Amino acid sequence: MITSETKIRVRYDEVDKMGYVYHGNYAKYYHISRTELLRRIGISEKELETNNVILPVTEMSIKYIKPIFYDDIITIKTSLLSLPASRMIFHHEVRNHNNVVINKADSTLAFVDINTRMPMRAPHLIVNKIESYIKKDK
Amino acid sequence: MITSETKIRVRYDEVDKMGYVYHGNYAKYYHISRTELLRRIGISEKELETNNVILPVTEMSIKYIKPIFYDDIITIKTSLLSLPASRMIFHHEVRNHNNVVINKADSTLAFVDINTRMPMRAPHLIVNKIESYIKKDK
Amino acid sequence: MITSETKIRVRYDEVDKMGYVYHGNYAKYYHISRTELLRRIGISEKELETNNVILPVTEMSIKYIKPIFYDDIITIKTSLLSLPASRMIFHHEVRNHNNVVINKADSTLAFVDINTRMPMRAPHLIVNKIESYIKKDK
Amino acid sequence: MITSETKIRVRYDEVDKMGYVYHGNYAKYYHISRTELLRRIGISEKELETNNVILPVTEMSIKYIKPIFYDDIITIKTSLLSLPASRMIFHHEVRNHNNVVINKADSTLAFVDINTRMPMRAPHLIVNKIESYIKKDK
Repeated sequence: MITSETKIRVRYDEVDKMGYVYHGNYAKYYHISRTELLRRIGISEKELETNNVILPVTEMSIKYIKPIFYDDIITIKTSLLSLPASRMIFHHEVRNHNNVVINKADSTLAFVDINTRMPMRAPHLIVNKIESYIKKDK
Repeated sequence: MITSETKIRVRYDEVDKMGYVYHGNYAKYYHISRTELLRRIGISEKELETNNVILPVTEMSIKYIKPIFYDDIITIKTSLLSLPASRMIFHHEVRNHNNVVINKADSTLAFVDINTRMPMRAPHLIVNKIESYIKKDK
Repeated sequence: MITSETKIRVRYDEVDKMGYVYHGNYAKYYHISRTELLRRIGISEKELETNNVILPVTEMSIKYIKPIFYDDIITIKTSLLSLPASRMIFHHEVRNHNNVVINKADSTLAFVDINTRMPMRAPHLIVNKIESYIKKDK
Repeated sequence: MITSETKIRVRYDEVDKMGYVYHGNYAKYYHISRTELLRRIGISEKELETNNVILPVTEMSIKYIKPIFYDDIITIKTSLLSLPASRMIFHHEVRNHNNVVINKADSTLAFVDINTRMPMRAPHLIVNKIESYIKKDK
């Protein structure tokens, strides 16, 4: 399992009339945290493009436990739970500055060929990078 | 069960680098469709404020089946599945212009007191409006 | 001069903590209204793609006169002030449901070649469509 | 004159079909940079609330010189040009990782009483903080 933590300060435009972060904006936070996790493994946007891969989200489920407010600094802990075959499943846990879990989510990303726009198996290069990161980490 | 259908034309700013509607933007579409359903029953934002109620989303799960593109006109069918007690559960189904289901989602909203910000039971006025709408509809 | 009017209902996610439409969201409203104006003339996204043209915004200036609120229905009147050479200049005027002008803006779009990403002159087809629309309109 | 620099990494959801940061999203970048400048002077959101002040944007003008791309790290340099009376005028300059100026903007914010929602003069506390920051900086 690979884990990554990202800190984000909530922006003004992300907060709604109720004073809470708009529920639709959490998807962006998970996205940023997934990107950080992949960057750490050595999988950048460029790496994906070179492999003709795009990674659309195919499933997402979210539990909003407590609200997040403007200017809060939140920590998103993202975990890649298993080696990818045709998709990657991530788990996200969001904590506030008091280290209280305020939100939990899962997201699934599919490997899709950028030209045919059809599902594909995870490119070897990417699977290898994940495997070698896990070994190195032990 | 109460059902409502809303048509939305996809905006330019909602589409990402892949040419797809960004996955985080679907939450807005469900929201618009829920608002239309509640408006039809006679539950407006004003109605909620008068009852000191806010309705934050507490759970959401989404299945992205096919992508949506810029300028597409999509139809969001939203259903309120049961009479609300302390929360309302909605089901959403999104179709493209060929009437193909491209997305499915569920969202849960909690009744929260605007002053205490604590969960509360659904106000009578709101439950009554839903009940009378269901009767009228039969 | 070509003029077009578009009605938009303000979405929940577009409103900020102050209860006002977030100032950054007005750009989306102008964009929708420009697209409607171009669609009316017969210039669609497809038309532009066929001509290998993209239309990035190069300048924008906005005067926020009065705020806009959640669920308000606003009218955006957009005018194309002159025949385009290498760019198009639009004027936008936003009115609320009482027909009061609440916002004014100008936006400039450049014709850019989709492949070279360099500025270009407006394609003949597009200039012709605008000219013939103006003639027809007289 | 008070100056502040903020670095931001461009998010995936901020980029449009053309591969450019959507022009409407720049307003968020200026906002973040203004907030950082005010925070540095000791003017936080809390400070403003205690003084019953909100700061809506009343004018904004933008020159988009070169595009910004996904994952780019940009630097927003924001300057407060003069002591505020009833409004504050900021100048923004955005540079890419090669230190090339890619965008310029001005934004004007008005002091508004949070209760009456009417324009007001800048609270003494805020003017004093700006004055003492300028002195300290010399």
